[in-house]
Amino acid sequence: MSWEQTKFSFSPRSRGCYLVTDEVLKNLPQIKKYKVGMLNLFLQHTSCALSLNENWDPDVRTDMTTALNMICPDNGGGKCQFIHTDEGPDDMSGHVKSSLIGASLNIPISNGRLATGTWQGIWLLEFRDYRHTRHCVATINGLKE
Amino acid sequence: MSWEQTKFSFSPRSRGCYLVTDEVLKNLPQIKKYKVGMLNLFLQHTSCALSLNENWDPDVRTDMTTALNMICPDNGGGKCQFIHTDEGPDDMSGHVKSSLIGASLNIPISNGRLATGTWQGIWLLEFRDYRHTRHCVATINGLKE
Amino acid sequence: MSWEQTKFSFSPRSRGCYLVTDEVLKNLPQIKKYKVGMLNLFLQHTSCALSLNENWDPDVRTDMTTALNMICPDNGGGKCQFIHTDEGPDDMSGHVKSSLIGASLNIPISNGRLATGTWQGIWLLEFRDYRHTRHCVATINGLKE
Repeated sequence: MSWEQTKFSFSPRSRGCYLVTDEVLKNLPQIKKYKVGMLNLFLQHTSCALSLNENWDPDVRTDMTTALNMICPDNGGGKCQFIHTDEGPDDMSGHVKSSLIGASLNIPISNGRLATGTWQGIWLLEFRDYRHTRHCVATINGLKE
Repeated sequence: MSWEQTKFSFSPRSRGCYLVTDEVLKNLPQIKKYKVGMLNLFLQHTSCALSLNENWDPDVRTDMTTALNMICPDNGGGKCQFIHTDEGPDDMSGHVKSSLIGASLNIPISNGRLATGTWQGIWLLEFRDYRHTRHCVATINGLKE
Repeated sequence: MSWEQTKFSFSPRSRGCYLVTDEVLKNLPQIKKYKVGMLNLFLQHTSCALSLNENWDPDVRTDMTTALNMICPDNGGGKCQFIHTDEGPDDMSGHVKSSLIGASLNIPISNGRLATGTWQGIWLLEFRDYRHTRHCVATINGLKE
């Protein structure tokens, strides 16, 4: 039975969806030692999110940004009126999207690998236009080989 | 302290929300042996999701599909334009809904039972019209009696 | 290696988003004893949710309610037609929002504290107008000092 916790950062990116599976795995080589367990990835921010989604066609990531901008437009897009607007039109919409998608992700570990499906990758979703460094706390709990 | 991981499949279903609590429990009889712990259910797919919601009135499940189709219509429903459309109008909308609801679910175990509330059941949300078999990785971690 | 599970209740509140970090910590003093671990907070209800979001400006919480009412209006808001309407216009919309945000939250523990970022707080999102007491199952798993 083992616990490991490590913190790493995602490099600054502007609004969009990014496939970060390789970046996550590079920072967490210890996953290979676990026969069974759970990985929790936790973003310490309120205007970005983590999700699992399609790892092949980059159009899906572009479309996801398009869809989220439709679901919660900047400044409410005339459909509702936000009060919290001092930090720009992408601020409150970013907070909404963060709660919709979620900042915390749980992925099972199986025989030294993440137990993701063939088409699943880890996405970082950035909701702010301005590039921010995003800090991630990774917690692994499981049985080593 | 014990870890168990097992994989099972949900039978193919067309677009809709399905109450699968009994199906999950039938595949995981070992839950009964845990005094305290956590169950993680993880779908290995990007156009379906798992959620906890109302376990009694089937109208709620019908309405959920209606609501999600309103929130992210197929092909953007004229409100936005998707690029990823080769696999049909329900493809990109399915990916969006999958990230909104989430493919991974954590449920506490208490005295051999899932610690869900009176009205909570486990839902499989299928976003594609065509029926797909959906694979689920179940990971249990906890203390046995 | 230690497991602890406890149940506490959030006092009844009407529709809105509430910062409950202090309330959660007051109910879980044992977090201080954990060097590393995970906290799972699990609501036993289907028309409220838990999320991590901005812990400073109360306008963000007001705006979140506004945004969610825009994304899934009561009774569908003329954009779709719900069947499950017997319990009031905020019933089905509450179920939808509950699945969008989620009833279960995982937060890493690091050196006796929740490993949240500077601006992150724990929110209880209540989707019903009528005030309900909300029960929460808190499960802690980790290594004590």
